[in-house]
Amino acid sequence: MAAMPYAKPIEYEEACPEVRAVFDEIMTLRKVDRVNNFWKYLANDPATLRRTWESIKEIMAPGALDPLTKELIYIAVSVTNGCEYCIASHTGSAEKKGMTPEMFGEMMAVVGMANETNRLVTGYRVALDEAFR
Amino acid sequence: MAAMPYAKPIEYEEACPEVRAVFDEIMTLRKVDRVNNFWKYLANDPATLRRTWESIKEIMAPGALDPLTKELIYIAVSVTNGCEYCIASHTGSAEKKGMTPEMFGEMMAVVGMANETNRLVTGYRVALDEAFR
Amino acid sequence: MAAMPYAKPIEYEEACPEVRAVFDEIMTLRKVDRVNNFWKYLANDPATLRRTWESIKEIMAPGALDPLTKELIYIAVSVTNGCEYCIASHTGSAEKKGMTPEMFGEMMAVVGMANETNRLVTGYRVALDEAFR
Amino acid sequence: MAAMPYAKPIEYEEACPEVRAVFDEIMTLRKVDRVNNFWKYLANDPATLRRTWESIKEIMAPGALDPLTKELIYIAVSVTNGCEYCIASHTGSAEKKGMTPEMFGEMMAVVGMANETNRLVTGYRVALDEAFR
Amino acid sequence: MAAMPYAKPIEYEEACPEVRAVFDEIMTLRKVDRVNNFWKYLANDPATLRRTWESIKEIMAPGALDPLTKELIYIAVSVTNGCEYCIASHTGSAEKKGMTPEMFGEMMAVVGMANETNRLVTGYRVALDEAFR
Amino acid sequence: MAAMPYAKPIEYEEACPEVRAVFDEIMTLRKVDRVNNFWKYLANDPATLRRTWESIKEIMAPGALDPLTKELIYIAVSVTNGCEYCIASHTGSAEKKGMTPEMFGEMMAVVGMANETNRLVTGYRVALDEAFR
Repeated sequence: MAAMPYAKPIEYEEACPEVRAVFDEIMTLRKVDRVNNFWKYLANDPATLRRTWESIKEIMAPGALDPLTKELIYIAVSVTNGCEYCIASHTGSAEKKGMTPEMFGEMMAVVGMANETNRLVTGYRVALDEAFR
Repeated sequence: MAAMPYAKPIEYEEACPEVRAVFDEIMTLRKVDRVNNFWKYLANDPATLRRTWESIKEIMAPGALDPLTKELIYIAVSVTNGCEYCIASHTGSAEKKGMTPEMFGEMMAVVGMANETNRLVTGYRVALDEAFR
Repeated sequence: MAAMPYAKPIEYEEACPEVRAVFDEIMTLRKVDRVNNFWKYLANDPATLRRTWESIKEIMAPGALDPLTKELIYIAVSVTNGCEYCIASHTGSAEKKGMTPEMFGEMMAVVGMANETNRLVTGYRVALDEAFR
Repeated sequence: MAAMPYAKPIEYEEACPEVRAVFDEIMTLRKVDRVNNFWKYLANDPATLRRTWESIKEIMAPGALDPLTKELIYIAVSVTNGCEYCIASHTGSAEKKGMTPEMFGEMMAVVGMANETNRLVTGYRVALDEAFR
Repeated sequence: MAAMPYAKPIEYEEACPEVRAVFDEIMTLRKVDRVNNFWKYLANDPATLRRTWESIKEIMAPGALDPLTKELIYIAVSVTNGCEYCIASHTGSAEKKGMTPEMFGEMMAVVGMANETNRLVTGYRVALDEAFR
Repeated sequence: MAAMPYAKPIEYEEACPEVRAVFDEIMTLRKVDRVNNFWKYLANDPATLRRTWESIKEIMAPGALDPLTKELIYIAVSVTNGCEYCIASHTGSAEKKGMTPEMFGEMMAVVGMANETNRLVTGYRVALDEAFR
């Protein structure tokens, strides 16, 4: 048995039908001819692949927030958690949806500031204002 | 000496002129007659109070991103960092700028999903796609 | 069976000999007549209590760094992780070792700044300089 | 348009006057003939570059805490947040200010211990001692 | 409009049919006559409520790992993220599935140790062994 | 003096007697003929090396929880903290103790879900149920 088989991408050709069905849907909906590595690795666990895809499809669809705003939020969280892959892939998605370098810069400025003030609040043990209860 | 004097809010009446100047500017710009506890605690260190206010004023101003989008990003980071005070105060600000319950719900759905996929990517050790390098 | 029995403090009077021995050593070394809640809760698992006490005693002792510097580092980490109890108890310890409100304020300014720049670096995907490899 | 233009370093030669002014000040103050990649990437957003430099210059200056202690706190936060670049660059700065391998080792021991006890406190749901309120 | 309406629990009596259907399923499957606050708050966003419930039901079911092991993993993550509510509710679930105080203590010891060594690895910038690539 | 001497592995041949004694014990207990990089880097601080080894040996031993369950908890924390080295080395250990790809997949699904719900709870500011107090 190879070491850590679940830490290797599953290509379409070697995938089981359940995985192929998800890959097909991703490629059709996103109008691309290949899926990102993220999906190829999740394919090691077909149940998680399917569930994650169904959730992302539903969550990232246009709604009360537009798709670009959702991508910006996604990146902000990924930066805060330090997930390099997620930052790279979602900045790519955000660009396709219209993010300019200026928008990226302003988003990052907010992310930096929020991370700073989150800690200032915590360290100074700021009590909740009556108005926020 | 009282224990942890820096963990107590400084009221306007007891504040030094440098602190009062910042409080005055916040109240004028935001058209309110009192400042939040956050500023009152930071007033224990006037240099940090002034620097933080100058930065927030500049960063949260309208630009390539509108103020509401910036608030949503701020909340997303604060939720990911688990800062209850920041969540409460910035959801308050976001509401004033037009955030509806539906927008809050969609923002939270993205935050939850990003936190989940950030960890899936990390645990499966997903390699960066050539296209993202 | 009471719910979550391990989430209750163990008082000296009800403690087993192994726990009492640790409590005695803490009180003697720190010249206090009671131990903090932290130790009382850890007493639910005597092995963890003893191991944690032995480690802290060794790590926080004077060495290449003085005890106050070590407390400042401890608080900086606790603020970054959002542990309110740890912030409160270690600012108490730091004050006993000479931390002034000015020192606290400067420590917090560094903590805030580091949290901000950590994220800026991550979001901009800053490549390691040759000199740092 | 190149993908993710904001994720590339801006060299002095191609920089706009506002960026060059900051680069010049960094090189003069630190007595070096080049700036680190951190500044070159931030240069994609001149406002963030300038604001970050002004803040760091003010915060890291000698005060109630000496510059080496501030660097140790910076590293402790960066380790806790998992920012490899920040760890590498600030251990470099700390060495220039006198950090010995023994100091680094003790700092890391405190960081490790604080991360451990932060979680023990959280998991055991340790109640705040009356004395810390 | 009440402030932060999404930060209030929705009781069964006031819930819409879609929310009631999820509440009913939770109560039936778990053999309880009320749902926890977690579900009542999520009910502010019926889509997130349903999706979260469907996912948890699938993920926490017996499989290659038994339900108690899954609860221990859930608690370990919640402690690391500092989510007090999640710790309280999942230690409750774990107790129902057989977790003893000794198991809780050992789980916490591993969580504490892992948090410590995660940071030691990061701070010492430990290179990946050839065998782990 | 070489830059960052503490960020280099210490090989057995160049190690001091105190370090060699720990290396010997690790190799004997684990029946291997070399130690992982983790131990080689910690060897830069012999006190931390010894203390960490003593703690891990005690914590990861069989007890109320079996060694495989402990490894799964270790991985779950390491994924949540984003420590790639720790994930790689402990999935290796877990495989030796019987972890199958299915177990890994289910563990990861729980880790992803817990990270998601931790944030949902925080963002919706879910109040603690009376039953959990």
